[in-house]
Amino acid sequence: MSRIVYLNGEWLPEAEAKVSVFDRGFLMADAIYEVTCVLDGKLVEYAGHAARLQRSARELKLALPLDDDELLSVHREIVARNSVDQGMIYLQLTRGVAERDFVFPPEGTPTTLVLFTQTKNVLVNRAAETGISVALLPDLRWARRDIKTVQLLYPSMAKMEAKARGADDAWLYEDGMVTEGSAATAHIVTSDGRLVTRDLSRALLAGVTRASILELAKAHGMIVEERAFSPQEALQAREAFITSATNFVVSVVKVDDATIGDGTPGEFARVLRNHYVETRRAAAI
Amino acid sequence: MSRIVYLNGEWLPEAEAKVSVFDRGFLMADAIYEVTCVLDGKLVEYAGHAARLQRSARELKLALPLDDDELLSVHREIVARNSVDQGMIYLQLTRGVAERDFVFPPEGTPTTLVLFTQTKNVLVNRAAETGISVALLPDLRWARRDIKTVQLLYPSMAKMEAKARGADDAWLYEDGMVTEGSAATAHIVTSDGRLVTRDLSRALLAGVTRASILELAKAHGMIVEERAFSPQEALQAREAFITSATNFVVSVVKVDDATIGDGTPGEFARVLRNHYVETRRAAAI
Repeated sequence: MSRIVYLNGEWLPEAEAKVSVFDRGFLMADAIYEVTCVLDGKLVEYAGHAARLQRSARELKLALPLDDDELLSVHREIVARNSVDQGMIYLQLTRGVAERDFVFPPEGTPTTLVLFTQTKNVLVNRAAETGISVALLPDLRWARRDIKTVQLLYPSMAKMEAKARGADDAWLYEDGMVTEGSAATAHIVTSDGRLVTRDLSRALLAGVTRASILELAKAHGMIVEERAFSPQEALQAREAFITSATNFVVSVVKVDDATIGDGTPGEFARVLRNHYVETRRAAAI
Repeated sequence: MSRIVYLNGEWLPEAEAKVSVFDRGFLMADAIYEVTCVLDGKLVEYAGHAARLQRSARELKLALPLDDDELLSVHREIVARNSVDQGMIYLQLTRGVAERDFVFPPEGTPTTLVLFTQTKNVLVNRAAETGISVALLPDLRWARRDIKTVQLLYPSMAKMEAKARGADDAWLYEDGMVTEGSAATAHIVTSDGRLVTRDLSRALLAGVTRASILELAKAHGMIVEERAFSPQEALQAREAFITSATNFVVSVVKVDDATIGDGTPGEFARVLRNHYVETRRAAAI
């Protein structure tokens, strides 16, 4: 382990990157985050992630300690310092260190900003080649999933439960409709070839990759329906896939016990993944 | 600031009590906590808090790094080291430091255990004397509130929203029924003198103080109904109060715009508070 971590303006060896136990991110999950993909040492869809970070911060009345240019610079510097070719940048912003209290600390209390990198082969990975299986599990998360907070205990528990059931990951449902994956947007393709993706609301995160994929699908003449779909509809789908910042597009070939299509990655997912990688790689900054 | 904090077997000045940014408590709210009241330098209702901690840990498959005797010793030592006469001990247990992943780290990964103290005049405080006002707000938390996790962002937001509305705190409701306060159990007394407290389920925390108060109420011949009550019933209550580890019993004299009773702490709350303090102070260890 030899990464360099960014913490409140300092560049630290990861073993020295520590926060106070009084940090509200640690004590109260009072924190937001973003994950930006790195490809060829460049930032993929940076504008989308930066915009969503700003929105999460506004919703929680959190002030970002860096302006737009500084934030971009830190992203670029952390890639350079860690020689990341493929992987991701994780960013977390908390309401800072304060005496533990449900009342927010006074305005002006310094926030905590941390960034670190993870390397991952995002272009070639087994999941994308073979597809993944998902287990359908109830969505027990809080009701403001449009804000990207670190309240990730349930998604983590759901992933573990999915694995206990022999699946790779979970798709969550609520009120008879799929919300999203444990850390990805859920999509299906109906038997008559319509791409169905849940419409945005407080029930799910506005995926940056999701938005791009819908745009690419429309550009390629696919019929796109932004609406909720049920677990039953997912079981009967012609194709299913997830999208996320570092998975791009990965086929779901099994939902609970139902094999989707012929059990191998489908055409929609393959086409969209290829177009996504091609266009977003070219546009990376 | 000069407290001594317990962190993974070490006693540290609070400024040095730091955890890795890779701690799952910081990154994923993968952590549980307890708050134990201190009175006369002794632990109030320790057995109840220790038992609930064990239950939260079991539910999340978290292993406590200390056995029962060691845990009690640490509680006593932190009181002594910080010369706490009245106040509280905060304890947090996380799944430890690991590369960020929704998959739990391997079994045997060391957990993170931190304890710190806060001083507070728990016997005499203004809230108990004058009562508090609460605003009714929707309960947007996750669905496993029976586990005492650090996913406290929404309770914190609700407290801030309550304050913005001119109230002292929030009572949360869901599906037309009050669940609990932002950090306390909600109780009402009906016009015909029945103490009504929501029955236990995954919708709310099994309050240690709640259990004692119900026991004391029954011992004093009060009629106790463990059932959900609606916001409307709360608005029309003869009396209302909260219970929590460090508030004991505090009257609610206003719910939204409705004055409860004559707007001063009621008889049930006063009697129960007095009996609670008397008996639990005597039984503190």
